[in-house]
Amino acid sequence: MKIEPIGIINSPYQVKGDSPRQGRFSEKLSQITVFDEYAQGLQDIEKREHLIILYGLDRAEDYKLMVIPPGKTKEQGLFSTRAPVRPNPIALCMVKLVKVEGNILTVKWLDALDSSPLLDIKPFLPEVDCMEK
Amino acid sequence: MKIEPIGIINSPYQVKGDSPRQGRFSEKLSQITVFDEYAQGLQDIEKREHLIILYGLDRAEDYKLMVIPPGKTKEQGLFSTRAPVRPNPIALCMVKLVKVEGNILTVKWLDALDSSPLLDIKPFLPEVDCMEK
Repeated sequence: MKIEPIGIINSPYQVKGDSPRQGRFSEKLSQITVFDEYAQGLQDIEKREHLIILYGLDRAEDYKLMVIPPGKTKEQGLFSTRAPVRPNPIALCMVKLVKVEGNILTVKWLDALDSSPLLDIKPFLPEVDCMEK
Repeated sequence: MKIEPIGIINSPYQVKGDSPRQGRFSEKLSQITVFDEYAQGLQDIEKREHLIILYGLDRAEDYKLMVIPPGKTKEQGLFSTRAPVRPNPIALCMVKLVKVEGNILTVKWLDALDSSPLLDIKPFLPEVDCMEK
């Protein structure tokens, strides 16, 4: 299965240590630029307050099946964690949409490193994406 | 970016019309089989009540940038919808973990068609994946 970037993320996080453990705990803004050929698909996006961003973990190390999560001392199975060292290095992050200007979205809560490849934008739907119904 | 299945999904949904519009609205069970080479990564997964499953939309049509969502009459930009016809055909679905037996997870709420390729399993973390904090 071949995956192609549909845009690029510009964020304040240049290297691994810069990014918050979860973007949710930062008010910093990131820009998501959708490539021109996909820009039409952004129509109506401004009606959505929250989005789920899928992006490529292009600088993650090779995958590991056992990891020690930050702040822990014991190894855990990878799939019980959000560690970036995954067989398919795809991250997801729920963000708040702040502004739409043409094919550029300004968002907060995104934890991507600067210049990460954008893979998809989905509307966040609380009735199916959350536990509380 | 090359993406490889890490497992396979067995669900009660054989063709497009079978699957619920959102799996959340069905109590039907699906099985997720993680391939042996990745099974070690499932350690500790039983401690998670809810998971986010990423899977490949391997039978989706070619992508469209404008779509008419079910029950609507007006076209909308693709990225403001969850339509499966995406440039990168990756679906995400929040599920409830019912049972773990070896490398097979039984879950509910999954909306995948039978034999869909599994791409990733992530723990659902309400503090970052939901709007309500």
